[in-house]
Amino acid sequence: MNSTDIIRGNVRAMAGYVPGEQPQDGAFIKLNTNENPYPPSPRVVAAVQAALAGDRLRKYPDPTGRAFRQTAARLLDVDPDGILIGNGSDDVLTIVTRSLVPEGGLVVSPTPSYLLYRSLAEIQGARYQQVPYTADWRLPQPWPVRGANLTFIANPNSPSGTCVNAEDVARLAEALDGGLVIDEAYVDFAERHCLSLSRRAKVVVTRSLSKSYALAGVRFGYAVADPALVREFLKVKDSYNCDTLSLEAARAALEDQEYLSATRARILRTRSRLGASLTRLGIEVTPREGNFVWWRRTYRAVKQTYEEVKRRQILVRYMNYEGYGDGLRITVGSDAEIDRLLEELGKILAV
Amino acid sequence: MNSTDIIRGNVRAMAGYVPGEQPQDGAFIKLNTNENPYPPSPRVVAAVQAALAGDRLRKYPDPTGRAFRQTAARLLDVDPDGILIGNGSDDVLTIVTRSLVPEGGLVVSPTPSYLLYRSLAEIQGARYQQVPYTADWRLPQPWPVRGANLTFIANPNSPSGTCVNAEDVARLAEALDGGLVIDEAYVDFAERHCLSLSRRAKVVVTRSLSKSYALAGVRFGYAVADPALVREFLKVKDSYNCDTLSLEAARAALEDQEYLSATRARILRTRSRLGASLTRLGIEVTPREGNFVWWRRTYRAVKQTYEEVKRRQILVRYMNYEGYGDGLRITVGSDAEIDRLLEELGKILAV
Repeated sequence: MNSTDIIRGNVRAMAGYVPGEQPQDGAFIKLNTNENPYPPSPRVVAAVQAALAGDRLRKYPDPTGRAFRQTAARLLDVDPDGILIGNGSDDVLTIVTRSLVPEGGLVVSPTPSYLLYRSLAEIQGARYQQVPYTADWRLPQPWPVRGANLTFIANPNSPSGTCVNAEDVARLAEALDGGLVIDEAYVDFAERHCLSLSRRAKVVVTRSLSKSYALAGVRFGYAVADPALVREFLKVKDSYNCDTLSLEAARAALEDQEYLSATRARILRTRSRLGASLTRLGIEVTPREGNFVWWRRTYRAVKQTYEEVKRRQILVRYMNYEGYGDGLRITVGSDAEIDRLLEELGKILAV
Repeated sequence: MNSTDIIRGNVRAMAGYVPGEQPQDGAFIKLNTNENPYPPSPRVVAAVQAALAGDRLRKYPDPTGRAFRQTAARLLDVDPDGILIGNGSDDVLTIVTRSLVPEGGLVVSPTPSYLLYRSLAEIQGARYQQVPYTADWRLPQPWPVRGANLTFIANPNSPSGTCVNAEDVARLAEALDGGLVIDEAYVDFAERHCLSLSRRAKVVVTRSLSKSYALAGVRFGYAVADPALVREFLKVKDSYNCDTLSLEAARAALEDQEYLSATRARILRTRSRLGASLTRLGIEVTPREGNFVWWRRTYRAVKQTYEEVKRRQILVRYMNYEGYGDGLRITVGSDAEIDRLLEELGKILAV
């Protein structure tokens, strides 16, 4: 007997989500997983230090993260009971999927987008259907799929960096029978958000502290939804999904909005410069509302560029989508990192 | 329309696992969730401090926890690729359940045991069947259920604190078609373990750092199984389920076996004294191989005792099992905490 005979067929058949490369040796300039080039607020480190100094590691964390939810609720002007804490926003996406999608159910998202949505459907044993964005990166109107248990919209979208209007998202929510997740992992870099839609019965807005708050290593995200929905999600989430140190880090991060504004402003300035420089190099890029730039395939195979850049110790993210094609997603790093990338690209493209 | 109409029927119908009370104000002596009365090793705190001082919070953690797995593999003498890291061992139990159990499948465990097994089945939309322990806390022979996708054995068992022999567990593994999880969350307090059974094709052994390593607040657990099984579990686990600080804490904890031995010895001495004192008070307790004592109902309603003790600012865990009855589970706290409990119990029982 094979040991994997006991595994569900849908799991055996799937490839599994492959995250961006995470070399642990520090030799690379990492522009591949949309990490923040700046460290988190000093108040985050102080909050973790304070928790370490106390008698808290040996005790279980607060299962629902009450203190964090109160801080977030105040900041966002929502009901604390309408907030669900997660071990990264991927954990929240998993909880919502398990709550809504039965085996044989249907999960839908626009494409190209976050590849995890397909993996979440596959793990559930559900079908997955992708809906192409229009040529100008909007949602097709009318929405072409009926009967989905769950639809995901990443807004801003990755890898494109584009963002759709709240009115278009609201129209989509109206058209759907099932749930709608608006994945706002990158929203702090955009000029607009859809938080007010979380008041609707079927809508869940998710946020991440990985990117804008520079806490990818800490794993913290959350969802905002109707408190009646959150009560159901609480049955599905692991009781202690967020640890004590991450809860303290997340709260401290949210409390330092001044720091967020300052680092965000630096990243947006670098993003603007990166976009303009790539355009000058003849590279076609999409409109940018995340902390990254999406380089569409134009006159040159992007896979080759990815490999040439990697040889020079710079990691960017090569992505290839069925029915769409490939491209490179480049994280907005520090000015020095982007200078180095542009310098190497100049040499590579001059050949 | 009701916002919860979009939730799966199995989730709406379930009650949800209820963890032990976690008051955040520090006013109670907590003997209800089997936390360690002693802090984690000083090397854990130093390792977290070192990670905080570096540039690591802003970057994603290592998805498979390679450094931790190498340390654990050396200590346990297993293949590092046969180790799956988890955000607490509950995360590992969830990953295994999602990998093995389809909607409408069957999950089985002995009873009374860890109530989460039922919740995991319910979230999957699977059936759950419980098999009573024999009167002397052994597994019934022959095992009465066929066709389970997944069977859980907590060994040592909670709430009873009893432990079955590796030979009996091996016989069970032999009899099953589906997977067998041997949940060894409490094994460091016992005299025996079943790790060698993890070499069998269908067996997964899970461990927790919450209890013996005093890291409940950090959330870290792991599984040991055939590397081919672990490769399937990796598709189901969240890519970044363990954060950087917990990975560092877990590795440092495992590296300080001397500290584990010292705190374990103190806890076992206190456990022995607590058991003897309860027996002297006329209270029937089960054999003890965890860091807790299980007080079976005897001449006095245990629910009332739970409430009387709680009024005196001491929390123990009241548990009531369908088809079995109720009891109190008392964590082996520090000597001072146990002295205080015994003093209050003496007063309460004298009435």
